[in-house]
Amino acid sequence: MTSYTVIGAGAVGLLYGARLAAAGHTVRWVLRSGADEVRRDGIGVFTPQGTITIDAADVEVHDDPATVPPSDVVIVALKTTANDRLGELVGPAVDEGATVALFQNGLGVEARLRAQVPHAGAVLGAMCFVCCRRIRPGVADHVDYGAVTVGSLDDEAPGAASRLVEDLVAAGVEATAVDRLGAARWKKLVWNIPFNGLSVVLDAQTDEMLADPATRDLVGRLMDEVVAAAEACGHPLDADVRDQMLATTDAMTPYAPSMKLDHEASRPLEIASIYDAPLAAAAEAGAPMVQVSVLADQLRFLDRRPRRRHH
Amino acid sequence: MTSYTVIGAGAVGLLYGARLAAAGHTVRWVLRSGADEVRRDGIGVFTPQGTITIDAADVEVHDDPATVPPSDVVIVALKTTANDRLGELVGPAVDEGATVALFQNGLGVEARLRAQVPHAGAVLGAMCFVCCRRIRPGVADHVDYGAVTVGSLDDEAPGAASRLVEDLVAAGVEATAVDRLGAARWKKLVWNIPFNGLSVVLDAQTDEMLADPATRDLVGRLMDEVVAAAEACGHPLDADVRDQMLATTDAMTPYAPSMKLDHEASRPLEIASIYDAPLAAAAEAGAPMVQVSVLADQLRFLDRRPRRRHH
Repeated sequence: MTSYTVIGAGAVGLLYGARLAAAGHTVRWVLRSGADEVRRDGIGVFTPQGTITIDAADVEVHDDPATVPPSDVVIVALKTTANDRLGELVGPAVDEGATVALFQNGLGVEARLRAQVPHAGAVLGAMCFVCCRRIRPGVADHVDYGAVTVGSLDDEAPGAASRLVEDLVAAGVEATAVDRLGAARWKKLVWNIPFNGLSVVLDAQTDEMLADPATRDLVGRLMDEVVAAAEACGHPLDADVRDQMLATTDAMTPYAPSMKLDHEASRPLEIASIYDAPLAAAAEAGAPMVQVSVLADQLRFLDRRPRRRHH
Repeated sequence: MTSYTVIGAGAVGLLYGARLAAAGHTVRWVLRSGADEVRRDGIGVFTPQGTITIDAADVEVHDDPATVPPSDVVIVALKTTANDRLGELVGPAVDEGATVALFQNGLGVEARLRAQVPHAGAVLGAMCFVCCRRIRPGVADHVDYGAVTVGSLDDEAPGAASRLVEDLVAAGVEATAVDRLGAARWKKLVWNIPFNGLSVVLDAQTDEMLADPATRDLVGRLMDEVVAAAEACGHPLDADVRDQMLATTDAMTPYAPSMKLDHEASRPLEIASIYDAPLAAAAEAGAPMVQVSVLADQLRFLDRRPRRRHH
């Protein structure tokens, strides 16, 4: 058995943390908000395979990362909008040499963690392809999907990724370890960059965007820019990744990407990790993503403007 | 005195038609909708300089362009979304050799009129820089601005543009004749392409877009693409047109572009004339407007989707 500390109990933290706990691992939680509710009511996750419940008596909740006992693996399930404070929010929970796994979107998050928490052991990136939303503190609704891809920042630490994947698979998660973290991050961006941003700007789900020929073509062109940038950055992707993703998304249940859920809930958008970092990397590599930059600027505007409530 | 037929009584038709009528010209109206209300109630336009009223008894309204007596000038004040039917909607009102003036936005509208109404005399383009909205049939609210720039499709007919400008100026309109219609059309697009589209996609007025550094930069980049396309199409603009327009717009009263008003009123958007035609011309001239195409595709999506009502 492995001991885990899960930092952040949004949709992703609740889903994967609850699955690992239900599989018998020790799971400790560090919560910034909602800690009292979780202590009182425990954790519940509705999933397509039934509800996972962890009684209040079995949930170990900490308000402060400094009070958590040493764990083998620290799972960071914070939104990347908190990533300028990883040293403070995550560092104290990481025992010297412990594995840290970032269950986050975007580019460069592992290097940021390494810089801010230098005493971490293996630093893993975990890309979640999941439709899940937090309903209230401790309670999440896992609607569909759930696959996780795990890669390691450091090529010399592949074992940590494999061990996390083994635990996830044993806990019922469709998890896969990958050799090339950079390529996996860029591949995820091929999907996230068009669909996350357009879902916010157009207030639309995936099926609507793909049904209209104009937005379908736009999604494809944005994907092309990301694929070209990935290659320029040294992470060539499969030649048909764009067509694969369009086909996969066509076959998906209509889907509201996480950024759309964030926007609807008036949470800050993950622009820095999903747009700024890839845009900067692409420009530096000589493959500027010109069309992506339009979308990014629109998102910056919407993110900064006081939220309008539509009923 | 000149005789005018005004086709279309939206905000633009009402404002300039009423001013010409108030200045003593014969003005006849061809209305597709609201004809009965205008016959019964007349025309009223609230302006910054006071209200212009035309009594019902003095308003000549036709339902059918074929029944209008010959006029010296036919003003087309239809939205360009009707421009595939100019032959039918305008042609019968145009006496052999009469001047036709298109008070419309976008590129290529004069050539389209010429092709569909070959018996027209001079074909003029009139670009209106005006904030005006129709409130109900026959009634418009002219909030601000109002300048009109007039150019001729045919270089050999500069006289017609000058005569229209003289009448407009005498009627209290800030009107100017220009030699180069193409350059004037592209110059207007430098403003319309960023502000019309972004106002719809972001649900924002000009001041909000310019106050945020991301959208201000985006507006500038979109303008740069239009300026480059204009030059490639043989219509070089002033080197500082972008900075001029940003400064002018900074100084403006916060402004909802016509496309935003159209979208709010669930009217079809003028995408063909303001986006499709310039995009095609730019691509053909070897200066594709890549960032503009993102905005155009977003607009196509929003235009085709059943309108959502926000309250």
